[in-house]
Amino acid sequence: MRIAELSHRTGIPVPTIKYYLREGLLPPGELTSRNQASYDEPHVRRLQLIRALLEIGRLPIASIKAVLAEVDAPTPNLHHALGRALQADLIQPEPEENGEEVDALIALRGWQVGHDTPARRKVADIIAAFRRLGWHDMVDNLDSYADIADRTAELDLGLLRTHADPEEIVYGAVVGTILGDALLVALRRLAQESASMKLYGLNQPAG
Amino acid sequence: MRIAELSHRTGIPVPTIKYYLREGLLPPGELTSRNQASYDEPHVRRLQLIRALLEIGRLPIASIKAVLAEVDAPTPNLHHALGRALQADLIQPEPEENGEEVDALIALRGWQVGHDTPARRKVADIIAAFRRLGWHDMVDNLDSYADIADRTAELDLGLLRTHADPEEIVYGAVVGTILGDALLVALRRLAQESASMKLYGLNQPAG
Repeated sequence: MRIAELSHRTGIPVPTIKYYLREGLLPPGELTSRNQASYDEPHVRRLQLIRALLEIGRLPIASIKAVLAEVDAPTPNLHHALGRALQADLIQPEPEENGEEVDALIALRGWQVGHDTPARRKVADIIAAFRRLGWHDMVDNLDSYADIADRTAELDLGLLRTHADPEEIVYGAVVGTILGDALLVALRRLAQESASMKLYGLNQPAG
Repeated sequence: MRIAELSHRTGIPVPTIKYYLREGLLPPGELTSRNQASYDEPHVRRLQLIRALLEIGRLPIASIKAVLAEVDAPTPNLHHALGRALQADLIQPEPEENGEEVDALIALRGWQVGHDTPARRKVADIIAAFRRLGWHDMVDNLDSYADIADRTAELDLGLLRTHADPEEIVYGAVVGTILGDALLVALRRLAQESASMKLYGLNQPAG
């Protein structure tokens, strides 16, 4: 199909598609003449993935690039491919803070993770931000939140292991992780609203 | 303190602070002369909050504005204030999709939430994105993820209810929700990596 139909099929404007082509997020179409290319179903699926990562995952373009590179990479070792795919969006150049609290948590949970894994530094940064803002509740209950994370990961990996094809597993890990983050966040909001209703909804004095 | 010291204390460049002042994210300082203002500790804390929402929460400026408006609002009814504060970052103009699946989930969980609550539409959008991408695992297990959300909200509200001051509760809800989202995401990654190590780390054939 021509780029205009690709735009029609995905609802993404032609200039935006051209931008993704220039950035290398979308592989080029097959040239049919000097200035015309033809696109097919994998392009439609790739554009839907980019849009979901952008709109639902709120990822910046650089992170989307990293995530797509993992989806496209060959997968000689599934654990390593999964590890990179799961954290491709987290890579950031910030310096490390409060590493000791994360290390203590990792030891407490018995988590088998690499020392340089991006999520480890991310947790350290978030702990530091909580401390700066003077809100210590969640940091003081880190292990309870880690317990929730363990239940989530158990469910996530349980779903992934029903698939056999390594490329499908990596694709599912990316989609399930990035969109799953957004899903968990939104479900948490619904559950919070309901819990707040039960706690504070009735007989709440004006204050 | 002068704006230069405010910048030094928070690590935020003076032009960025001026931008936040223009956007109304940061209340103006007290004028000490025609073109000089004085800032104090609440300005430091507000800048740290803006930075955390921006860098850890990855919120766009418009969402930060909405969230700060809730933090600053008086709280005559804590449930309503909490409800708005918890979802201030989710408000978006997209059309509603797949509302029936979310409604079924809400009924199944017995969640007491408003029909127009932003998180409800957000969940519908995410379900639609999963379906478009052809990845049905998480949608088919929505109730299991909702169960995790319930445990999280129970923990969240349990921590909030240890505080008595309504303004502190709203502040804590905002910080604990936005930074807490990022914390849960990062902890999920660590737990996933560890679970992947146990599942695929050993004896994984090249594939």
